[in-house]
Amino acid sequence: MLQELPALTPGQYSLVFNMFSFTVATMTASFVFFVLARKNLAPKYRISMMVSALVVFIAGYHYFRITSSWEAAYTLNAAAGMYEPTGELFNDAYRYVDWLLTVPLLVVELVLVMGLPKNERGPLAAKLGFAAALMIALGYPGEVSENAALFGTRGLWGFLSTLPFVYILYVLFTQLGDTIQRQSSRVSTLLGNARLLLLATWGFYPIAYMIPMAFPEAFPSNTPGTIVALQVGYTIADVLAKAGYGVIIYNIAKAKSEEEGFNVNEMVEPATASA
Amino acid sequence: MLQELPALTPGQYSLVFNMFSFTVATMTASFVFFVLARKNLAPKYRISMMVSALVVFIAGYHYFRITSSWEAAYTLNAAAGMYEPTGELFNDAYRYVDWLLTVPLLVVELVLVMGLPKNERGPLAAKLGFAAALMIALGYPGEVSENAALFGTRGLWGFLSTLPFVYILYVLFTQLGDTIQRQSSRVSTLLGNARLLLLATWGFYPIAYMIPMAFPEAFPSNTPGTIVALQVGYTIADVLAKAGYGVIIYNIAKAKSEEEGFNVNEMVEPATASA
Repeated sequence: MLQELPALTPGQYSLVFNMFSFTVATMTASFVFFVLARKNLAPKYRISMMVSALVVFIAGYHYFRITSSWEAAYTLNAAAGMYEPTGELFNDAYRYVDWLLTVPLLVVELVLVMGLPKNERGPLAAKLGFAAALMIALGYPGEVSENAALFGTRGLWGFLSTLPFVYILYVLFTQLGDTIQRQSSRVSTLLGNARLLLLATWGFYPIAYMIPMAFPEAFPSNTPGTIVALQVGYTIADVLAKAGYGVIIYNIAKAKSEEEGFNVNEMVEPATASA
Repeated sequence: MLQELPALTPGQYSLVFNMFSFTVATMTASFVFFVLARKNLAPKYRISMMVSALVVFIAGYHYFRITSSWEAAYTLNAAAGMYEPTGELFNDAYRYVDWLLTVPLLVVELVLVMGLPKNERGPLAAKLGFAAALMIALGYPGEVSENAALFGTRGLWGFLSTLPFVYILYVLFTQLGDTIQRQSSRVSTLLGNARLLLLATWGFYPIAYMIPMAFPEAFPSNTPGTIVALQVGYTIADVLAKAGYGVIIYNIAKAKSEEEGFNVNEMVEPATASA
């Protein structure tokens, strides 16, 4: 974790800083939306919006911390026209802490919005949530290890972390495939999209994890290019996987609420009801 | 309290820092969850979620403070590759302040969710809450004392603090045993789990308090290993005893609400209800 940071041009430094700040704004605004919008859903689907709200809340907190850590790690050397490392640690581990909490919740969201029978829902959410937490926890020792070889410590933990990932994909694409097909065509398209978004955004992490160790010469891990690309890439993946994904979940929950006869107009006008 | 801090490796320093930050995220996110989720419960059980929300709110505040205090107490010596004490106090007493407020509330939560008759509930919550506050207050003089001997100041206050602890256990395991048995099997299992979680997580504190004084040679109190183990241990115990415990209390309240005929779907649709 104690990586040597390279000096960055003002453009490189600011790009990363502004992406972080953008993400703080996106996550906190999404939090407000998910909290307010849950009232538009049938009560049984509101829990999925609450989980979405927790995910972006936690991510917003971590991006706020990451932004401060980035700021503390660099100082402008005006004479050289470059941002130079201050010697303070840039604490990238906030990402792992964040994922340990949010990644299980993202899987749980998907299970909650499917409307499975109560006795299936709980155990499935628990199994997938546990696998997701395990996936993150097993990746961490490889990430912080000094030994970044493909067939060394990093490679080993990376491989172990892949096992629960494959299990999650297996459940999402086979076992839950039937459940998705049983939905109306609108809902099943949306569920399919949510599942693909998970696959695409989560897929960024193993690629970012492996490329530097598979091709250490082509992608040395502490050049400005690699650092900027990684930070920007992780940030875009997080915005899509958390805020974007939460919006899809909202649309699924809304469509299902309407299909099941929930009418938001009746609900919020108690005065009419008592007339 | 004014302990000499040892130099730590970046891995040791970061592990403690990241656990603190993880806990800030967990406690504040749990606060959001408990506030939002109380609407899924029958009105009489919502008070237990409000108390859970207070507990994690207070803990989130204290962990935010502890994180800052830890940051201020250490600075990276890049040449040595070590985190060295700055001379600023690492204020571990935030934990006592936190416990003085939260530990009585945790006992009150359990009493509130049991659904005792109104005339028993109030006095029982008051007695157990007072005993819990007394337990924390009596532990504090021993913790800050210079005399850390088993048969000295620390041992004496530690012993006095054990008396209310034993009283609480006595009430939870005998007097409330009958109440727990009278519940449905689902609820009584959950109540049993909540009680065991209290015992297990609270049990960490007396062990952490006693071991260094019982075996001062084997566990000197200011080595890196002891400091990291203590901080990580306290943190895990707090997450389980507050956030994890609150989730169990939520499940108990939800199960009891449903058993007593509360239907979340009917509740928020007054228009249908009056038709």
